[in-house]
Amino acid sequence: MAPVSLDTINPKVLKCEYAVRGEIVTLAQAVQEELKSKPGSRPFDEILYCNIGNPQSLGQQPITFFREVLALCDHPSILDKSETRGLFSADAIERARQILDQIPGRATGAYSHSQGIKGLRDAIAAGIEARDGFPADPNDIFLTDGASPAVHLMMQLLIRSEKDGILCPIPQYPLYSASIALHGGALVPYYLDEATGWGLEVSELKKQWADAKSKGITPRALVVINPGNPTGQVLAENNQKEIVDFCKKEGLVLLADEVYQENVYVPEKKFHSFKKVARSMGYGEKDISVVSFQSVSKGYYGECGKRGGYMEVTGFGPEIREQIYKLASVNLCSNISGQILASLVMSPPKVGDESYESYSAEKDGILSSLKRRAKQRLSNTASYTVCVVYAYYSLGISDAQLTLEDAFNKLDGVTCNKAEGAMYLFPCIRLPEKAIKAAEAAKTTPDNFYCRRLLNATGIVFVPGSGFGQVLGTWHFRCTILPQEDKIPAVVSRLTEFHKSFMEEFRE
Amino acid sequence: MAPVSLDTINPKVLKCEYAVRGEIVTLAQAVQEELKSKPGSRPFDEILYCNIGNPQSLGQQPITFFREVLALCDHPSILDKSETRGLFSADAIERARQILDQIPGRATGAYSHSQGIKGLRDAIAAGIEARDGFPADPNDIFLTDGASPAVHLMMQLLIRSEKDGILCPIPQYPLYSASIALHGGALVPYYLDEATGWGLEVSELKKQWADAKSKGITPRALVVINPGNPTGQVLAENNQKEIVDFCKKEGLVLLADEVYQENVYVPEKKFHSFKKVARSMGYGEKDISVVSFQSVSKGYYGECGKRGGYMEVTGFGPEIREQIYKLASVNLCSNISGQILASLVMSPPKVGDESYESYSAEKDGILSSLKRRAKQRLSNTASYTVCVVYAYYSLGISDAQLTLEDAFNKLDGVTCNKAEGAMYLFPCIRLPEKAIKAAEAAKTTPDNFYCRRLLNATGIVFVPGSGFGQVLGTWHFRCTILPQEDKIPAVVSRLTEFHKSFMEEFRE
Repeated sequence: MAPVSLDTINPKVLKCEYAVRGEIVTLAQAVQEELKSKPGSRPFDEILYCNIGNPQSLGQQPITFFREVLALCDHPSILDKSETRGLFSADAIERARQILDQIPGRATGAYSHSQGIKGLRDAIAAGIEARDGFPADPNDIFLTDGASPAVHLMMQLLIRSEKDGILCPIPQYPLYSASIALHGGALVPYYLDEATGWGLEVSELKKQWADAKSKGITPRALVVINPGNPTGQVLAENNQKEIVDFCKKEGLVLLADEVYQENVYVPEKKFHSFKKVARSMGYGEKDISVVSFQSVSKGYYGECGKRGGYMEVTGFGPEIREQIYKLASVNLCSNISGQILASLVMSPPKVGDESYESYSAEKDGILSSLKRRAKQRLSNTASYTVCVVYAYYSLGISDAQLTLEDAFNKLDGVTCNKAEGAMYLFPCIRLPEKAIKAAEAAKTTPDNFYCRRLLNATGIVFVPGSGFGQVLGTWHFRCTILPQEDKIPAVVSRLTEFHKSFMEEFRE
Repeated sequence: MAPVSLDTINPKVLKCEYAVRGEIVTLAQAVQEELKSKPGSRPFDEILYCNIGNPQSLGQQPITFFREVLALCDHPSILDKSETRGLFSADAIERARQILDQIPGRATGAYSHSQGIKGLRDAIAAGIEARDGFPADPNDIFLTDGASPAVHLMMQLLIRSEKDGILCPIPQYPLYSASIALHGGALVPYYLDEATGWGLEVSELKKQWADAKSKGITPRALVVINPGNPTGQVLAENNQKEIVDFCKKEGLVLLADEVYQENVYVPEKKFHSFKKVARSMGYGEKDISVVSFQSVSKGYYGECGKRGGYMEVTGFGPEIREQIYKLASVNLCSNISGQILASLVMSPPKVGDESYESYSAEKDGILSSLKRRAKQRLSNTASYTVCVVYAYYSLGISDAQLTLEDAFNKLDGVTCNKAEGAMYLFPCIRLPEKAIKAAEAAKTTPDNFYCRRLLNATGIVFVPGSGFGQVLGTWHFRCTILPQEDKIPAVVSRLTEFHKSFMEEFRE
């Protein structure tokens, strides 16, 4: 007798889905293996992973200063050697010393306080204060292995049963639906309005809140992802104020996913943390519960593999704080390199520091490249190379608007909002009835069917919209803007060719 | 209205307890702050954290080779510089190159495969094969942020409701009771026999299994911690075979906590992994489900802050493996430095490598020191210093047996089994009736009362036995053997003095 079968495992695990690493990605890994063992077996020679916000996997380089400090903290015994001064910048050496001094016994190999090393939390709190102009308390900071475990922790704290609801945007980042499913709660969807650039309407929040209540569900918290994933929308400050008031009025914990706070690409929008917005409205600790999630994986740093992040927890009484601390303590602490990196991204080199210039150049290079990829015309940039010209001549594209967004909007039946921030586009695709029937026959959803075909034909990995949620009967996919600029023409060219033949195949 | 109160959070969170970082530790942190702000306010000047297996917090140094490789992987751009050869050993440089070659795009800042980087899993599988003499499959390895998240993952997979039972040793490491509580299962206790050095009797397993069944509970898995935490017991191979047969017969998943596999101190015992034992009995993939947990936090490496670890998952069908992979993927991946370190501890330098000699010297130094602290007489070692002589003369101890174990056994009313392995002693203390009543009046358990008093009088942090579980009416505490050898006399001296006055105060 097998001790474990699908019939005998936790049904919440079965219910949980995580499309960002789901079927299409598993298929892509298999195709990649196939390419390795049988080169030339496919009409393409590499897999282009546009499924996940993983910048360094697509060629983005880490920020040198951050890596210098991490290396020195990993191996402090070289700090005093003369060769070290030849290899590392002086301020990285100085910063590593400062950080080591904040660690009891200078022991980067020891478990830390379960909230993270106090001195690093001090640096993070100071960074939040500088960003927001309102005080931040290091005792409110919980350092975590990326933002995901922090989200799980809050879901675990809040969800008692399927009668507890979490208001979540649709489309959403599937960490939320997965975590709510695993903890046995109810996802209460609120729909972002695609027609207004994925606008978040408070009237929609109220409607869905009332609808949940009428079904006997108690909404406990509201998830807002700002800048949005997968939508790329950046909330306007006034909109945020309405959201804060809604949470305050209905006694909802505001779970603010702010991991893309450095990724805003349009001049008319600016990132405002929800805590800052609440404080600017005069609401303090006793008025509203806000949890802000931040990660070292996004921004210009893109250090996904380091698994660093934190949550800032405000507006909870001491007895609840104690429970949050207990949950954090069961896993002892987050990894110390990730903790150090979280403190560095919140307190990077300053004007006058030896590394400041190179740091700024690296940061600006990454952010302006992301901005170009999200929005600007390639024709306006230095990247308008022979390769690009070739691609667009060969496709017969009549102008030089070769961003991904533009490319999507040029496809038959596809419309795509612009990415104001974050790292994704989430185009809508109207599929022919014949394709929808073919998907049905293949026992899958039409968006999945399209993405699977795309992968097999081109090696490009998109995530079907079903994984994020979408209005019934509409179909989308998520695509990161992360491929390096010199790869984008190839993505555009392969995608355009595929799409044309797909639409022809299924034309009514 | 506060959105969250103790009445409205997940009751499973309230139920969960984690004594290793519980009340006594919180109190210790407060006393430490007090010592900092008011030096001299206490009869001691430092807190001695004997509550947790955190070697580097108590002065153990990291293994140089491991840290060299980590630093180079953090900052690969120095690999080709000439100064680097002056700072790092040649084989560390070579190993860092090999590891980077195994990482797609050499990107240590990218999310990896959710099971961990394939090349690192290959190295770990090879290390397991070398250890056990039986094949290991890299696809069975799931790299995790320490062993704790792996344990949670398995509990989450297996537990459907409070009708699902997990057989757990008593005393146990409270991660298990905490995780079972958080996932809403039933802890089915089986008692280790203190009289036979914490022996694990299969008759006791059978009895508790039957008892659980009679209460309508379905036992799903058996947790075995070997070497034992907090008991220090190392299982004999024959005993392990009986346990394997029991699991096979009753269809139980064997959850083998093997994080102390390098920590065996007695010549008559040897570590055998449960997978090896099962394979040596002729049981393969289809016969028994075994999950082995390993961590970089223990052994001679003691790299707690790096949060590296893995589980080796065998004996599950592909459909269950897919569910395990899905759960792992929701958190994307474990931290890459921890992954690298996990591969290093399973494939350390070999004879002939440049670092081999220094590596071996560091490793042997740590393990033999731990062995002395666990077991040997200090009088036989170089550590028998003036300080020790002073301590034992001042206490009037009549011989030179100053190990912690011996010291405990000399205390009035205390008996202590020896630590054959792991990092802890778990002495039993018979408290006077008057102390038990005083604890009752203070609304706490007698062991907690004792540990609190000890902390306040001496700065020594032990964990009360209640946190691990103990036979009704018996009282224990857990103490690590990790204080550096030159500190042990002070621990012994402070403890002995305290204990004497405590027993006098509460004498009937």
